Amino acid sequence: MALSKQPYRGTRDFFPIQMRQREFIFEQITKTAHNFCFESYDGPLLEEVDLYLAKSGEELINEQIYSFVDRGDRKVAIRPEMTPTLARMVAQIHREFPKPIRWFSIPNLMRYEKPQKGRLREHWQFNADIFGAEKNLGECEILKLIVSILKSFGANQNHFEILLNDRRIVEVIFKSKLQIDTGTQYKIYKIIDKAKKVSADALDKMLSEYLQGDKKDFFLEYLNLKSFNEISLFIKKYKLEDETQDFLSFVSLLKSWDLETYCLYDPTIVRGLDYYTGIVFEVFDKNPENRRALCGGGAYDNLLQIFNEDPLPGVGVGMGDVTLTDFLLGHKFIPEIIQPPFDLLVAYMNQTAQLKALEWTDHCRKLNLNVELLLGEARPKKAFSYAEKKGHKGVLLIGENELDQTELVIKNLKLRTEKKFTLKSLDELKGFLCNQ
Amino acid sequence: MALSKQPYRGTRDFFPIQMRQREFIFEQITKTAHNFCFESYDGPLLEEVDLYLAKSGEELINEQIYSFVDRGDRKVAIRPEMTPTLARMVAQIHREFPKPIRWFSIPNLMRYEKPQKGRLREHWQFNADIFGAEKNLGECEILKLIVSILKSFGANQNHFEILLNDRRIVEVIFKSKLQIDTGTQYKIYKIIDKAKKVSADALDKMLSEYLQGDKKDFFLEYLNLKSFNEISLFIKKYKLEDETQDFLSFVSLLKSWDLETYCLYDPTIVRGLDYYTGIVFEVFDKNPENRRALCGGGAYDNLLQIFNEDPLPGVGVGMGDVTLTDFLLGHKFIPEIIQPPFDLLVAYMNQTAQLKALEWTDHCRKLNLNVELLLGEARPKKAFSYAEKKGHKGVLLIGENELDQTELVIKNLKLRTEKKFTLKSLDELKGFLCNQ
Repeated sequence: MALSKQPYRGTRDFFPIQMRQREFIFEQITKTAHNFCFESYDGPLLEEVDLYLAKSGEELINEQIYSFVDRGDRKVAIRPEMTPTLARMVAQIHREFPKPIRWFSIPNLMRYEKPQKGRLREHWQFNADIFGAEKNLGECEILKLIVSILKSFGANQNHFEILLNDRRIVEVIFKSKLQIDTGTQYKIYKIIDKAKKVSADALDKMLSEYLQGDKKDFFLEYLNLKSFNEISLFIKKYKLEDETQDFLSFVSLLKSWDLETYCLYDPTIVRGLDYYTGIVFEVFDKNPENRRALCGGGAYDNLLQIFNEDPLPGVGVGMGDVTLTDFLLGHKFIPEIIQPPFDLLVAYMNQTAQLKALEWTDHCRKLNLNVELLLGEARPKKAFSYAEKKGHKGVLLIGENELDQTELVIKNLKLRTEKKFTLKSLDELKGFLCNQ
Repeated sequence: MALSKQPYRGTRDFFPIQMRQREFIFEQITKTAHNFCFESYDGPLLEEVDLYLAKSGEELINEQIYSFVDRGDRKVAIRPEMTPTLARMVAQIHREFPKPIRWFSIPNLMRYEKPQKGRLREHWQFNADIFGAEKNLGECEILKLIVSILKSFGANQNHFEILLNDRRIVEVIFKSKLQIDTGTQYKIYKIIDKAKKVSADALDKMLSEYLQGDKKDFFLEYLNLKSFNEISLFIKKYKLEDETQDFLSFVSLLKSWDLETYCLYDPTIVRGLDYYTGIVFEVFDKNPENRRALCGGGAYDNLLQIFNEDPLPGVGVGMGDVTLTDFLLGHKFIPEIIQPPFDLLVAYMNQTAQLKALEWTDHCRKLNLNVELLLGEARPKKAFSYAEKKGHKGVLLIGENELDQTELVIKNLKLRTEKKFTLKSLDELKGFLCNQ
């Protein structure tokens, strides 16, 4: 039986046409990350499972991780996310490294998912994190970075919104107002995660299992808050100012940082199964046909604890390539087809012309032109048809007649023009091929 | 017990300083691959094990592969090499795709190796392949690409050499001259692989197990050939011209393609456990302290057969980042430390200056300058010391005195100069910071 030609379930083959799209997106992200002076890092594909056990939710470990035992009896896993690796690396160097640390990466990650729109088993995820910034400023800078990345593609507040909350608000509600234990908190977190996907009745019913009477009403009042104004009034009403001071000053920063227009308060954003301890957020596509989180992140205080290191406050964001690409294509921010960066096809019509074709090819490449030598003799029709299919901008065809010429004709395929060049004048070729 | 901060055995953490080196190398390779009009592709991290079983040597599957059973009972493996994925992808599209196909990729791969100098468990490997080129021309173009990549870093024939052979010569010796069966051929291939690492006596002894008398002498004569001239005489002496016609015309091509100075005939290059069917080669560092193959490759005819597709001749090369980096560092072709691409640190001395710092930061970033806003108030000493440690070229420091100024002083850290800028004149900042 012949082997399957299809990629493993939930993964993708990137043929050149898809690869150019991926590279276009990653290059744009990288450019903006550099504009913000984030430094690029990377880590191993495999980590020991203990690292994920120590950091992530049990759900991730049990159901979603690709783990196995290596030949040396080590339990290892393919990285399902980058943050544990990042924490391990920062734990090695944070004492000597000038702070704030600003790092980014675009690793490939694997999770054992049921493949569906926006969700695959292998994806690439842009990660950016800041460690050791002054209170609330790292949060603002990370949000500003994400806004700038999306704006760099042409998006604005009509296309995306940042839904935002503070884990400390949820914690104070759980602890001082509802007085529930950690196990119940965990279950309620899971309910909050679903709050917007179910009806009001269903939500009420789910909550009733853990909260009754005044407590339930209070919690439903919280879950119905819809703006920074409403949460501020809620905080005043229930006298939570002391516990939410940092949040209130963060909200006032959003204005001066030009972030207010993108952000919306949303009590159901908790990222409950994660390690966040402060501000948490998710960025949503406003396209009604793609109501998905493009990316999410937040602030964490204790990531280095598992390495016995002193706490170092951090804030980070992760943005997956699958949902981002859906967002960008949905709003037509990237072309469906990106042409390859090919300048010139050099073809020769017979064996004797091969050497001259080689000479001109070499010369053009030395001038940093992207030149393909057609590997085999070709008649004009074949050469031009091949050049158009491949996406070359120009063609140089060499036959008997050109053998003793020092001036050769190069054709511009798009403009249907032609011009004579000598080896010495080839530095003008780029201009001739630029199609303007 | 605290978790280990070290990466999994045989893998690497790429802190920003290592990452910049890796990116420097990959960008240079990519630029040359683009100059040759190779198109970039990528495939999944995991493939079904059957793909590797169908294509690779048993040794690789049994001893070196990271394989496991997924939750859906599929036997999968982390890619140990890219060629099987490439073959699977090309099998999908080769009927419609204009040929020759010229593709490249720099995937991360994993092999279960004993970590040592030049050999790790995770490495990145530049792969370039050509499918469907005219006889011998793909081979020349792949060699030219590798030579151009190494030359682009500053290397020449004093630094590396390409040792080259043809599997068809070995096959004809095995079949018509030695008349040995496939099992013995396989064992002799393994001996040839070791030929240069053992003494003449030891080699003689190993061969004696399978070859005796005239046959052994004949084979040792073959193994002692040292140049294109010697193999040509050998071919004439034993009347092998008919079976080695393609090889002889390939050798004459090397001259016209300017490749002869880099290439050396070597009968012990067979890449015996691989799927090659024609020219095979390895590129060696001439540095006596690093006598390693930087890369290897060759021609193959039957890669698509496992997918029931018609044969499509191909030729490819793989170059790993670990050995390449050793080569480049050994010859001082790349700097040990590459500075980050940071232009400017903007710092503010007190809270009231934060807004103005933000405004100038935004403005510079819009001009595509890489600017870090120091996230927290800073006195001048702290700001300058931080900027130097991080590698910024300039510093803009904003305090009380600057609040109502439209002209602000920016310092060039390296040249110890300063200049006044307004928001409008910031487009001249890049020039001021370029340090020349």
